[in-house]
Amino acid sequence: MIRVVAKFGGSSVGTIERIRHAAGLVAEAVARGETHAVVVSAMAGETDRLLGLAGEFGAGLGDAETDVALAAGEQVAAALMALALRERGLQSRSFLGWQAPVFTDGPPGAARIAGMEASAFEAAMAAGIVPVLAGYQGIAEDGCLRTLGRGGTDLSAAALAAALGARCDIYTDVDGVYTTDPRIEPAARRLDAISHDEMLELAAQGAKVLQARSVEFAKSRHVPMRVLSSFLAAGQSRGTDIVADRDIAERRVVSGVAYARDQARIAVLGGAPQSRFASETFAILANAGIGVDMIVQAHGREPDTVNLEFSVAHRDLDRAQSALEQGLPGLRIGSETGLAKVSVVGAGLRQRADVARSLFGVLGESGIAVKVLATSEIKISALIDNDAVERAVRALHAAYGLDRMGN
Amino acid sequence: MIRVVAKFGGSSVGTIERIRHAAGLVAEAVARGETHAVVVSAMAGETDRLLGLAGEFGAGLGDAETDVALAAGEQVAAALMALALRERGLQSRSFLGWQAPVFTDGPPGAARIAGMEASAFEAAMAAGIVPVLAGYQGIAEDGCLRTLGRGGTDLSAAALAAALGARCDIYTDVDGVYTTDPRIEPAARRLDAISHDEMLELAAQGAKVLQARSVEFAKSRHVPMRVLSSFLAAGQSRGTDIVADRDIAERRVVSGVAYARDQARIAVLGGAPQSRFASETFAILANAGIGVDMIVQAHGREPDTVNLEFSVAHRDLDRAQSALEQGLPGLRIGSETGLAKVSVVGAGLRQRADVARSLFGVLGESGIAVKVLATSEIKISALIDNDAVERAVRALHAAYGLDRMGN
Repeated sequence: MIRVVAKFGGSSVGTIERIRHAAGLVAEAVARGETHAVVVSAMAGETDRLLGLAGEFGAGLGDAETDVALAAGEQVAAALMALALRERGLQSRSFLGWQAPVFTDGPPGAARIAGMEASAFEAAMAAGIVPVLAGYQGIAEDGCLRTLGRGGTDLSAAALAAALGARCDIYTDVDGVYTTDPRIEPAARRLDAISHDEMLELAAQGAKVLQARSVEFAKSRHVPMRVLSSFLAAGQSRGTDIVADRDIAERRVVSGVAYARDQARIAVLGGAPQSRFASETFAILANAGIGVDMIVQAHGREPDTVNLEFSVAHRDLDRAQSALEQGLPGLRIGSETGLAKVSVVGAGLRQRADVARSLFGVLGESGIAVKVLATSEIKISALIDNDAVERAVRALHAAYGLDRMGN
Repeated sequence: MIRVVAKFGGSSVGTIERIRHAAGLVAEAVARGETHAVVVSAMAGETDRLLGLAGEFGAGLGDAETDVALAAGEQVAAALMALALRERGLQSRSFLGWQAPVFTDGPPGAARIAGMEASAFEAAMAAGIVPVLAGYQGIAEDGCLRTLGRGGTDLSAAALAAALGARCDIYTDVDGVYTTDPRIEPAARRLDAISHDEMLELAAQGAKVLQARSVEFAKSRHVPMRVLSSFLAAGQSRGTDIVADRDIAERRVVSGVAYARDQARIAVLGGAPQSRFASETFAILANAGIGVDMIVQAHGREPDTVNLEFSVAHRDLDRAQSALEQGLPGLRIGSETGLAKVSVVGAGLRQRADVARSLFGVLGESGIAVKVLATSEIKISALIDNDAVERAVRALHAAYGLDRMGN
């Protein structure tokens, strides 16, 4: 018997009718002989509403009381999903984060799952009951509620799947993982399967279908995932399997093209080559909670100086710049905005040193300047002008043959 | 140091501004040297909204999943109140029913408080933190959430006050307990103090300021209560103390006049005097969950027959009548609608056998017919025509001198 944890996000439970439809998908899977547990997000808009209420008193994400308010959103959705499943003739009951319990560590608003007790779920499923876990939440060691931050419900689902030895089906508003964003490139194709590593890079480089944290968790715990649409009728969504690298049958050099708009570039200019200014730079940014991407170190204009360049999200630019100006007196800090990042991701890049050069070539032929280039094992990213994103995505998608793949 | 549990109902936390105002009342009390814990209901309208969502799936009060959804309302209010108290410069944190924990037994939607662990509250208060308990909720023995039914947050507050040895301040939209409804009798006066028993009878006879269950609990656990307005500025609401009978300084024969509209009378006619038809009647109604009030047994018209008459709420009339017709074949069931109940309540009635007679006299002089009369230790109730309620309340209020009391 196939055991599945099905996760439904906010838009999949956004209205009474959407909850009913999601319950119908579960009921059909159970009728096919699968054993199901369900994990839900708050109804679409509810998290923002609750965050707004807490915000009226000056509390944001990171405040323990904000977590108490936010967790109520998933609580209501879990109860309603259990009722909707019963309406479909199944037995069901809800489990809140503290009832499982889901143990967390880390700060309010961004907790990590430290462990999960799944015996109550095992018992429920053995008794023919579909358990519904309220996602995004757990409890700290002191018994306080914690939320898991952005994409937290995906993480709840992956953790429950790991504990139950189940596959983790992520129901969302798209029919799987695509070679790139179909709104930009109509020839984008759904992938039948992708490795955890490739999915991780696509998520990290801007693909919004899954949060990187849940994929990391699934990879480390060997949980197979599947991305499916909750907006199609049962059996209509083919989906994409996210599996261990060794389980990918068909080898491709490149699996997808991702992009992220609204990037900025910061340059720290004129550092002494032997000084610790680079490590100080990243320590300052880490203390300010600012994520840094695409780092390049190069010779400065003045003899015996070094420039450090990196990209940050545009929304972090002002904070990053003032933190650096305070923390690095004597060094000049420059910045450039209006940038975007395009990335080519594929497990096959490991053996292909020429892809970086060809990426330069493809973008150059399209008249697109590359400001910074960064590579990892299975990804190459280029920082380009914001208004060149769509041309870059289409050119790369065609150049790597993603519109012609056999799947 | 005076220790107080302050309870704020739905209208007292209905908006961000109302929550701020309530927090201000607590802050001023703390500044006066009182030690406070707070208990809150859901924001006004929220319980109905959540009940409506559960109702979309056919679940009402009494379903365990409805309780899970409803408990989220008080959860959010508790978090927001803790934030509002912090905004006033106090330290504060929320406690959900399961975190205290508040132990319950009884069914979903109408659970009873079986016990409460207050050590976390003691610790918080000792550390200068104002704990905020989410009202209306607790956990069953199996760890499932339960709600306490109508007036449940008053009960949460009374239980917490009992556990802490505190006074229980119930903040509501009126400035205390009045001799009668000021909308009917402008000469109605606020009572400085009233006994638990009198308050219980007033609540049972229709006064809406407090639910009977919380007063019963407070009486049995010797918890002093105070009813106050949350709509006045700090120090402006004098309130009414609800205390043990022996602590009432000033003896009054009558403390208040209560009324309840929309009553109906049922008559079971022609029973045999020695038969068990009366006990069968009440067993049938109890099984149907219908509350019975004002019972009178009298000789029937036919020789050797007995009539049983009693009042029920109008909304229960149809169910009561069909249950009785099914359960008592051969007996005739009659009914009368358009009735109301007026009641005179006072601890001094115990020693005054003549009050029943004088009540008949007062109503008779006003041309109001008494259909059924019922007495208890400290209350006399009369069933009258619905449209005579206002005249009856005013006549009784004047006749017992409630407009002239010295408080």
